Amino acid sequence: MKSQIGVIGLGVMGKSLAKNLLSRDFLVSGFSRRYEVTKQVDSEVAKNFQACETLKDFIASLEMPRKIILMVPAGDAVDVLCEEIVGMLDKGDIIMDCGNSFYKDTIRRYKSLQDKGIHYFGVGVSGGEKGALLGPSIMPGGDATVYPMIAPFLEKIAAQKDGQACCAYMGPSGAGHYVKMVHNGIEYADMQLIAEVYLFFKYVMKLSNKEMAKIFEDWIDTEVGSYLIEITASILKEKDPKTPHDLVDMIVDKASQKGTGKWTLIEGAELAQDVSIIQVAVGNRIISNFTKERTAFTRHFKGTPKLNISVPTPSISEIKDAYYIGKLVSYAQGFSLMAEASKQFDWNLNLSSIASIFRAGCIIQAKLLETLKDLFEKEPHLNNFLLSDSILPLVSSNINSLRQMNLASTLEGIPNPALSSALVYLDQLKSVSLGANLIQAQRDFFGAHTFERIDQDGSVHHEWNNE
Amino acid sequence: MKSQIGVIGLGVMGKSLAKNLLSRDFLVSGFSRRYEVTKQVDSEVAKNFQACETLKDFIASLEMPRKIILMVPAGDAVDVLCEEIVGMLDKGDIIMDCGNSFYKDTIRRYKSLQDKGIHYFGVGVSGGEKGALLGPSIMPGGDATVYPMIAPFLEKIAAQKDGQACCAYMGPSGAGHYVKMVHNGIEYADMQLIAEVYLFFKYVMKLSNKEMAKIFEDWIDTEVGSYLIEITASILKEKDPKTPHDLVDMIVDKASQKGTGKWTLIEGAELAQDVSIIQVAVGNRIISNFTKERTAFTRHFKGTPKLNISVPTPSISEIKDAYYIGKLVSYAQGFSLMAEASKQFDWNLNLSSIASIFRAGCIIQAKLLETLKDLFEKEPHLNNFLLSDSILPLVSSNINSLRQMNLASTLEGIPNPALSSALVYLDQLKSVSLGANLIQAQRDFFGAHTFERIDQDGSVHHEWNNE
Repeated sequence: MKSQIGVIGLGVMGKSLAKNLLSRDFLVSGFSRRYEVTKQVDSEVAKNFQACETLKDFIASLEMPRKIILMVPAGDAVDVLCEEIVGMLDKGDIIMDCGNSFYKDTIRRYKSLQDKGIHYFGVGVSGGEKGALLGPSIMPGGDATVYPMIAPFLEKIAAQKDGQACCAYMGPSGAGHYVKMVHNGIEYADMQLIAEVYLFFKYVMKLSNKEMAKIFEDWIDTEVGSYLIEITASILKEKDPKTPHDLVDMIVDKASQKGTGKWTLIEGAELAQDVSIIQVAVGNRIISNFTKERTAFTRHFKGTPKLNISVPTPSISEIKDAYYIGKLVSYAQGFSLMAEASKQFDWNLNLSSIASIFRAGCIIQAKLLETLKDLFEKEPHLNNFLLSDSILPLVSSNINSLRQMNLASTLEGIPNPALSSALVYLDQLKSVSLGANLIQAQRDFFGAHTFERIDQDGSVHHEWNNE
Repeated sequence: MKSQIGVIGLGVMGKSLAKNLLSRDFLVSGFSRRYEVTKQVDSEVAKNFQACETLKDFIASLEMPRKIILMVPAGDAVDVLCEEIVGMLDKGDIIMDCGNSFYKDTIRRYKSLQDKGIHYFGVGVSGGEKGALLGPSIMPGGDATVYPMIAPFLEKIAAQKDGQACCAYMGPSGAGHYVKMVHNGIEYADMQLIAEVYLFFKYVMKLSNKEMAKIFEDWIDTEVGSYLIEITASILKEKDPKTPHDLVDMIVDKASQKGTGKWTLIEGAELAQDVSIIQVAVGNRIISNFTKERTAFTRHFKGTPKLNISVPTPSISEIKDAYYIGKLVSYAQGFSLMAEASKQFDWNLNLSSIASIFRAGCIIQAKLLETLKDLFEKEPHLNNFLLSDSILPLVSSNINSLRQMNLASTLEGIPNPALSSALVYLDQLKSVSLGANLIQAQRDFFGAHTFERIDQDGSVHHEWNNE
């Protein structure tokens, strides 16, 4: 009997997706370059799984039109596989790349396979191993007319929230991976914001891990509640199995990255959107790896005198408000980037639908997304949701908590790249002047780049004295 | 009689370079797509200039091996021209692209012309119109063995500093445009820092343009002195020819960008180097164009109550120290990026030589570059010059001025993206913790990305409770 769908790549994520499909009673074929991996999966599942030894067997095992999920490392591996299987496929077959591919690669592959009559979907999948197994958030992008053929699979294995699947058609080829990229950029930003709250609790307020865990737990059912807040509470309670210490204190202060945060900040630059919080989140991970510089600086600055200024330490509730504003700004920057991409690439992204499928299954699932789902439903064309009548008063009434927390961090020298970027962003938006008039004057002075005048339209050049 | 060198593209920069060459008694041919432009240049110069009507005439007018300067807009125009002339050239001819081309395009063009025996140089040129005419800073990258053939021209027309030409061989193809790109990134950062000092003077200290101009003038002969400080003083003194106001106050608060700043921040991300000040400098220009958001925010936030905290306003001298630290950090980030590029691309960049040719002719020429020239001569392999024994004490003794200025800006809500990024960067480098341990714990929790332990080598995964 033919399988209804197949999975190529049976690492942590591929295996979990295959098991998820099997748990929904789909007939599934699996293939890995290493047959023992495929056999291992076979031994772990009860039925309905075909363990294929060769790609040829795998392709032959699928009912037509074939639906093939690729879950292999982003990059060359995807191209190699596509090239390898394309000759075995028939017109109308569908490939779904469920890895974290760069959206421009996805568009390129889509076009090259289109000529051969093969449908190509870039499918963002978020949720880690557990999500992939039990229900991730899924962001498919490709031909709208083909989507109904894969929807029954993807929407079935996705997380469910209030009876709705956390999977929706995002837009044309590339759109799915783009949304996933921005999802990850927001993820970087939120993790960085939480890390800064942690540093503030630890080094300014001298709280224990247990006390911090309690606070984060208390936040779960509030407006700042999220999966990341939940796991932060769990992490802070975790004991080290090898020593009497808390595990978090045994972990080296050095963070890695796999590329999606970097892509998001590059896209922000390309599309002239400010994504400062995502930038500094990537930056903090980079700097955490500068071991030599950090050692020299830490040693040299030991005992630098503190300024004799007094800033009252904000209360836990004010810190929560400050974090919430930071979170709002980082989501706003991410959603603004998607709004701009949608315009520039003519994708017609549905921001309400995106917020909706982010509500469960994915890493950034959070209470805030329920708010954003409703907000974008009412105001689908809002470029920057901070401008919404329902959000702006929240920001203005809590901005001073963020300001006070930043003042305290700055005074103490506690690094606060994301929280300070959030405040600077708000101060930039609300300021009558950014000094950009002086910058344009400089540009015109040395490069005749011209400027606009406040009292007339159009650009002019001035013959500066001493030019 | 044949010309010794030719210039294609006779806009502001091309015309100025041609005139510069003529002023050094070189025989020069010129070509523009529009012959009237070429004839106009001809009418402006005394002798030794051949105004060529066609590309064929232009190529035929040059002595062999031909030396051809391209000064056309970066991008397609360069490819189109190369394609057009390559068939007319002979083996051994040399093309110098003196525009702001992206270094990867330069490497691509170098390779494609190499097969045809044509030498290709990417040549960074900084100094604006005046520099191009009287002596710019010049950054050539290409084959070292070919450089001696163009050196007599480039070193002659370059700015001179203490008897040395502000032109030096940078490295292989791409290296020249890379250095120019980073030069421009630093330029963005320094302009942003100066704009923030201006905002502080204007909105916190309520100084007049005249008072500010006086302060910037006083700074010219100090350690913060630079061309940009000089022109800032000039700009602040400039009267509007059309109204009784100062010109700077008649300029719209909206800055443009042409791409090199953006490229620098993208390169920082690609090479895992933190260039936060360049990032926020680009970001401030982006945000200055968000007219709709700014109007809504400015209106909404009017009258938001201030925090009841008192931060003493720093003195002019402390502000100068704060600006100097910001400037040091921005140059350090730029030079670190070049050091890393040199390593990754095997370019063997000479940072001392780069600092040396930046000392005159270019936009970022500054007293600081004299210091850096000497510093990198002694410590050529310093990744981050802030670590130098001659710089680190400067930073630590002035960091509190930067801190106090940021506290005052933050309290008043004056946007300080660059000055706050500089301080955050220093605080990140000197902090015992960046919260990266928590971030790695989160990554391991949701994605099994593993972490390092402080008490053993290698990466481990933990089976988290509630995972």
